[in-house]
Amino acid sequence: MSIKPELPRPLPLATRTGVSFDFPKSEYVLSLERGLAVIRAFNERHPSRTLSEVAQAVGLTRAAARRFLLTLGALGYVESDGKYYWLRPQTLELGYAYLASVPWWRYGQRVADSVAQETGCACAIGVLDRDSVAYLAYAFGNSTQSLVRSVGTRLPAYCTAIGRVLLGALPEEELDVYLASVPLEQLTPHTVVDPQELKSAVRQAVADGYAIVAHQLEPGLYSIAMPVRDRQGAMCAALSLSLRDAPGKGAALARDYLPALKRAAADIASALPA
Amino acid sequence: MSIKPELPRPLPLATRTGVSFDFPKSEYVLSLERGLAVIRAFNERHPSRTLSEVAQAVGLTRAAARRFLLTLGALGYVESDGKYYWLRPQTLELGYAYLASVPWWRYGQRVADSVAQETGCACAIGVLDRDSVAYLAYAFGNSTQSLVRSVGTRLPAYCTAIGRVLLGALPEEELDVYLASVPLEQLTPHTVVDPQELKSAVRQAVADGYAIVAHQLEPGLYSIAMPVRDRQGAMCAALSLSLRDAPGKGAALARDYLPALKRAAADIASALPA
Repeated sequence: MSIKPELPRPLPLATRTGVSFDFPKSEYVLSLERGLAVIRAFNERHPSRTLSEVAQAVGLTRAAARRFLLTLGALGYVESDGKYYWLRPQTLELGYAYLASVPWWRYGQRVADSVAQETGCACAIGVLDRDSVAYLAYAFGNSTQSLVRSVGTRLPAYCTAIGRVLLGALPEEELDVYLASVPLEQLTPHTVVDPQELKSAVRQAVADGYAIVAHQLEPGLYSIAMPVRDRQGAMCAALSLSLRDAPGKGAALARDYLPALKRAAADIASALPA
Repeated sequence: MSIKPELPRPLPLATRTGVSFDFPKSEYVLSLERGLAVIRAFNERHPSRTLSEVAQAVGLTRAAARRFLLTLGALGYVESDGKYYWLRPQTLELGYAYLASVPWWRYGQRVADSVAQETGCACAIGVLDRDSVAYLAYAFGNSTQSLVRSVGTRLPAYCTAIGRVLLGALPEEELDVYLASVPLEQLTPHTVVDPQELKSAVRQAVADGYAIVAHQLEPGLYSIAMPVRDRQGAMCAALSLSLRDAPGKGAALARDYLPALKRAAADIASALPA
């Protein structure tokens, strides 16, 4: 639209924290919140739902839910056979509006594909989004892996290798706030849930330049992750390789996978804007 | 939520056409339309924008645009440094709501990864969404390919192999409506834009069980596509392999890539619900 030269602008980064959005309640567009909730009412367990089911899931009257569904239908996001409603592929545009705004994400997916093929491990690229790691790219490794992940996957940061690397980029006080506020769940008998121990693990990852976790999120699941940094040294994402039932641990994982991981991180970094 | 057994329900299919969404204007939720437009105002060219730029892009007053941005910020979809606004990874959830409602999509991505690795071609899985093919899965082939595609990519149906296969599943009258209403653009000197010729090409694809296109969307781009069918024989998606500067044409493409494409389509079909 504009013909003036593009000025340097903030780009979505791994750990960017913006201003707070506190503002008068009178300014809040409740209809937008409700409409987005109607979209999110459809998922793996509920690929299609009746009007009543949508109304119940979102906490709206049938009349209100109907208005949102009809509006989404008119806009091309929802379809119906008169009884059931379901989402149309156009809904993808909304999620991909975010991905398209990440300048390196297509290249990142190619790199993830390539390192997954080379190592046989599942490869993820993630950023920190509030308390969670959000995957911007994902590649399945060899078919014996049974990880169920994809672009859009969200996982708790404290128990994943990629999350511990990303937490390492937070200022000390934000890391403390994170550890004090997030529910630290004992997901396996080995999951570290002690805030001090987690803080040490995050610091260790910063010192090492990579993080390794074993049995933290699921039993038998091993991951190694390292940062992707831009030319100014800022962490803009983290990259991980995951596998089940790793033959070795710790040092063996680093020995076996760190070289490929380093090359992949450098490769993505080379595609970042200057 | 419900403990009653799940009944068979309509699933998102490649070419499902639902009821029309004509309804009284008084029922329309304009705020939802505007809020979704604000999300879509961010993209590859505009990863971050000022309030004025968002207002201009969406056609809103600054005051109105501000309310939508603040609401999206409060909901975790938008972030700001006080001057610029940008999308947060949480926006992925909205696109993901659709993908998660496609029961085979994760498995489809794995199959796409695998066939892309095997053949070196780029592999896409798409469905018809109004006039366009929407990609639900995508795998880059070898790194000499320079295709810029991803999940969420939308391409015109008439000039892609995957699109011609999907158009073949439409009832005759819907195909005629499509050909009469869609703008048929001469994208390369070879692009077929004659409706009768396109109809023949779609019929040929139905007869052959696959479609091949050359130089239709971009010069030098070759694709071969075939349907993915469920157990009732209904087309629920189409699968394509694409490459640049194919050494042979037509028959050679079919000879070289049809076996892998067939195995991949059968593999995805095996993961479809009964």
